[in-house]
Amino acid sequence: MAGPVDMVIRNATLATMVPGGAPYGLVRDGAIVIGDGLIVWAGPAEELPDAGDATIRDLGGRLVTPALIDCHTHLVHGGNRAREFEMRLEGASYEEIARAGGGIVSTVAATRAADEDSLLASALRRVDALIAEGVGVVEIKSGYGLDADTELRMLRVARRIARDRPVRVRTSFLGAHAVPAGMEADAYIDDICIPALRRAHADGLADAVDGFCEGIAFSPEQIARVFDVAVELGLPVKLHAEQLSDLGGAKLAASHGALSADHLEYLGAEGIAAMAEAGTVAVILPGAFYTLRETQAPPIAALRAAGVPMAVATDANPGSSPMVSLLLAMNMACTLFRMTPEEALAGTTRNAARALGLDDCGTIASGLRADFAVWDVEEPAELSYRIGFNPLYRRILGGQF
Amino acid sequence: MAGPVDMVIRNATLATMVPGGAPYGLVRDGAIVIGDGLIVWAGPAEELPDAGDATIRDLGGRLVTPALIDCHTHLVHGGNRAREFEMRLEGASYEEIARAGGGIVSTVAATRAADEDSLLASALRRVDALIAEGVGVVEIKSGYGLDADTELRMLRVARRIARDRPVRVRTSFLGAHAVPAGMEADAYIDDICIPALRRAHADGLADAVDGFCEGIAFSPEQIARVFDVAVELGLPVKLHAEQLSDLGGAKLAASHGALSADHLEYLGAEGIAAMAEAGTVAVILPGAFYTLRETQAPPIAALRAAGVPMAVATDANPGSSPMVSLLLAMNMACTLFRMTPEEALAGTTRNAARALGLDDCGTIASGLRADFAVWDVEEPAELSYRIGFNPLYRRILGGQF
Ligand SMILES: [Zn+2]
Ligand SMILES: [Zn+2]
Repeated sequence: MAGPVDMVIRNATLATMVPGGAPYGLVRDGAIVIGDGLIVWAGPAEELPDAGDATIRDLGGRLVTPALIDCHTHLVHGGNRAREFEMRLEGASYEEIARAGGGIVSTVAATRAADEDSLLASALRRVDALIAEGVGVVEIKSGYGLDADTELRMLRVARRIARDRPVRVRTSFLGAHAVPAGMEADAYIDDICIPALRRAHADGLADAVDGFCEGIAFSPEQIARVFDVAVELGLPVKLHAEQLSDLGGAKLAASHGALSADHLEYLGAEGIAAMAEAGTVAVILPGAFYTLRETQAPPIAALRAAGVPMAVATDANPGSSPMVSLLLAMNMACTLFRMTPEEALAGTTRNAARALGLDDCGTIASGLRADFAVWDVEEPAELSYRIGFNPLYRRILGGQF
Repeated sequence: MAGPVDMVIRNATLATMVPGGAPYGLVRDGAIVIGDGLIVWAGPAEELPDAGDATIRDLGGRLVTPALIDCHTHLVHGGNRAREFEMRLEGASYEEIARAGGGIVSTVAATRAADEDSLLASALRRVDALIAEGVGVVEIKSGYGLDADTELRMLRVARRIARDRPVRVRTSFLGAHAVPAGMEADAYIDDICIPALRRAHADGLADAVDGFCEGIAFSPEQIARVFDVAVELGLPVKLHAEQLSDLGGAKLAASHGALSADHLEYLGAEGIAAMAEAGTVAVILPGAFYTLRETQAPPIAALRAAGVPMAVATDANPGSSPMVSLLLAMNMACTLFRMTPEEALAGTTRNAARALGLDDCGTIASGLRADFAVWDVEEPAELSYRIGFNPLYRRILGGQF
């Protein structure tokens, strides 16, 4: 066997998530050979190559999946919106909540007022909840600053998370998240958002560029201006698109070779075709659908038929999805949107990696990172079936338990 | 101060849940004096009586609520229904699932086949998830045996849980849960269910008697026969009622002085009036509503207007609600049914205690048990607002951290 071998995992069921074979790429009585933090070999135990005197880890028949990937979160932010949640349920009108300082404005104000350390401290609690469910990569967006300094501070906090916790972080610059109070959208895009993006890129803080294309946010033309700069800077793009209406955002994103278009409740046939053509991942976010009590589900069957890869994420954010359980997002994707448990797991592994432009993780295959979640379950469907239950046994990152 | 004092809790916000005063019975900068496992005194720190040399616990400003109470679960059972969940999402018909052995029949078969130790082992994982969220009392039903031996075995397992874990357990005999294959409902009630109830009572295994009144289960007349025996035995009753249709189950339950009527999606005005009159608690179970994708919500506003106390529970069961998060049930009660966060918390404390006939817990008041949950949150609304996040800091049971 070529290369160093540090450990052999035995007596496990592997949901490799390698496509084209058995459902889930399942290997019963499987084994994995790990060397230098990478997968050297994975397959049926009976075909296990000689691994010298490597440490053997017997997993007692447990299920091993790729470490999970949460490919869409807003988990760095100040404050919370519990009081607004409560006021709404107590019958307060939209105006009363706005007068009380509610809505995204309140999160922007709280985020602007918070320093890096306090943003980090509150974000770490949410990151820890994700890690406890076997998450190995988390995407984190800016977007609650709406001024250059705060946008960059959010991204710096996201980078610090990867230093403070055993988790990989991918950042997305989301300056085009909302129009700040007192500004015109066009002026905000040109005078604040794009210069902030250039600074974020210069400081190495942005792995991708995101936007919110919606009647209540930015038009396709405004988003296109941001995307053109992203392309100029060599940054991949992604987009919040078709969540509340069909503005053609997914098609715009696809035309810029977007990694993903996200939400997609109102996505039509043209957008689906454009995404399929461009290989853009559909990121499905049931937490927001659930919280906002939406009734129009994204076109899962049509996406499936068109061969558009689907990912599933928490959309962890203080307003429309205060959720930090990726397993629950998987259950919601099945229960609310009729995705299959296999699609839900592909959506938090293989396709989530693709939505982040990562080709070193997301399946269990030779040459990829040895990032795994080990579960106290017998069948992979159990991960989507249960609600509010975490059967994680261990997480393995870079071959380290 | 009368009586022994073991500990004083200071520097905490108390959501006492004592009705009639501030929302949540909230006391900022509160203190609790604990002696002999009971609450000796609770109130504002500035009124704290002299407590001698008792141990002082500073809670750093955290929120203290009564320990949570999950007043409706089926968490003792064999097997799981993940494969059935998956088949349904892959498009299998009801007949195909039935042919594959799915539905409640599969849980009955798995439960009958399981011995006490294996039922206990699987149930403890679910109980541990509840305890991790600050639950101090859990109700557990039989109902997957549908024969005397298995019904009693389930109840014995429920009793063993209270010996193996720091949690109180209240049992409900639910022989009238489903009609076993190959039997007539009337014969099952008279020949199996009622004799099993008498045995369960004789063995001290049943704290209450429950039933499932529905077209697919038992008629009000059949349930009444079981309830008459319960009354004869001095056992309180409760009922799964009006979940899928209005058969008058809640009214029947109220006429037997029921502790609770549960589910209640199709409850009408007559049932509400009967429950208000009898003081019967409405147990709201959003997990089943969510999982079954029901569209008719229980009449929360009418129950509120009629002054019917409302509880909230997980309904933890392998078919219609494979959920073991009481915090998530609270969020669902708010999000899906428009209960307020205060009602949701009353529903898992004060009113849940009442649904179980317990008068020694559920609020923070002198003379009650010192059973608390301590949370890393600032406001009690945060407990319902977040989704899939557990902010528990510590659970205190009988004054023990
Ligand atoms: Zn988002
Ligand atoms: Zn039930």
